[in-house]
Amino acid sequence: MKRILLEVAYDGTAYCGWQIQPNGITIEEKLNQAISALTGEVVQIIGASRTDSGVHARCNVAVFDTNATIPPNKFSYALNQRLPDDIQVQESKEVSPDFHPRYCKSIKTYEYSVWCGRFSMPINRLYMHEIEAQLDVKLMQQGADYLMGEHDFRSFCASKTNVDTTVRTIKNITVTSENQVVTIKVEGYGFLYNMVRIIAGTLIQVGMGVRKPEDMVAILEAKDRREAGPTAPAKGLVLQNYTFI
Amino acid sequence: MKRILLEVAYDGTAYCGWQIQPNGITIEEKLNQAISALTGEVVQIIGASRTDSGVHARCNVAVFDTNATIPPNKFSYALNQRLPDDIQVQESKEVSPDFHPRYCKSIKTYEYSVWCGRFSMPINRLYMHEIEAQLDVKLMQQGADYLMGEHDFRSFCASKTNVDTTVRTIKNITVTSENQVVTIKVEGYGFLYNMVRIIAGTLIQVGMGVRKPEDMVAILEAKDRREAGPTAPAKGLVLQNYTFI
Repeated sequence: MKRILLEVAYDGTAYCGWQIQPNGITIEEKLNQAISALTGEVVQIIGASRTDSGVHARCNVAVFDTNATIPPNKFSYALNQRLPDDIQVQESKEVSPDFHPRYCKSIKTYEYSVWCGRFSMPINRLYMHEIEAQLDVKLMQQGADYLMGEHDFRSFCASKTNVDTTVRTIKNITVTSENQVVTIKVEGYGFLYNMVRIIAGTLIQVGMGVRKPEDMVAILEAKDRREAGPTAPAKGLVLQNYTFI
Repeated sequence: MKRILLEVAYDGTAYCGWQIQPNGITIEEKLNQAISALTGEVVQIIGASRTDSGVHARCNVAVFDTNATIPPNKFSYALNQRLPDDIQVQESKEVSPDFHPRYCKSIKTYEYSVWCGRFSMPINRLYMHEIEAQLDVKLMQQGADYLMGEHDFRSFCASKTNVDTTVRTIKNITVTSENQVVTIKVEGYGFLYNMVRIIAGTLIQVGMGVRKPEDMVAILEAKDRREAGPTAPAKGLVLQNYTFI
């Protein structure tokens, strides 16, 4: 029995997120089907990040166990033949049998992109949140700086979540702008449910002048979801990278 | 009677190009329908660039004549209500009645993007040509430099074209690379049919080492379409900008 790790990229537009749902097609389900069709085994993949409906990935990580004799690095090619265009494995390799992608320490990088224009830009519309307002990137970065490091991010966590602790560490967060596109890049060791999208929604309010950068201090202290801004739409979020450390 | 200029952005994926075709839906047709529905007039729009099937635009230009009393700058908003998500007007304004977008001198900027990866990257797949090879951007820029300025570009023109002259001027051409994406940016006063895609197809061969940069000299001199490389796929091409000078 071998444990195979996959780096999976997908366009989340057509899917109800990563995790299998009773209603609606998910990325996990498509991967299970492709692996089962290839190996002839009943396979249940374990994903590193269970991304929400509509969220995209350049690199999510998943593992599965198999007795198939296919060389580990050939799974990528063989699975891509059986996967749709909007889900493609970028790499496959063998890992140790006890490697679990959710319990191993890792750095995850997310990018949230916003198109700032009077009207929708068609070639951006599937992968960016679109707003009419202009955003002040300098103010957004000032606000973002308050989130760096270890904090209790309860205010930036969907209220329905049930976790042991809402303390997380943000390693880095940058806000940049180019050709009417504002990008919020967040690196961390782990995130709460909807955390990056709530951070994006709150920083967008800072960029619009609706909140001040220093309001982030009070939002963190409140430990109350209602104090932060709205959850920004899923389509603007891309899981960019996953590094196990 | 007023002449209205529109800056039109579109995702070309679902369309048979700009120009009305007997079979298949086109961008021109969708715009004519939206303008006619808005004004109650039978309108025939005139486009600046009749982009091919599958080519995208951030800014193509078109004009039409109308007796409607709608303020010129309000057409953008009113038309976008009647257009699909993948075609959106970015700006509307009045121009002089003799302004013709194809006969006025202009600088057009095209970008051709190539994803260089072992496998397709889903969130790029609609807007980039995807190849497995790595491209040598320095060699591509050397090849591109031979195309700068005024030349007879007959070798870089689809053979079925019937034009007075195949002499054109390329104002600037740059080849850059970032995160496995190679971008060929071409600025000029006008292009022959398929010219940018044939240039891209030929420079990709240079980047792969199949041709030498200095081969561009002989290709230009041959004035024969068969001497240049293949026409790169439409989906990698975006008409970025249009400036009337």
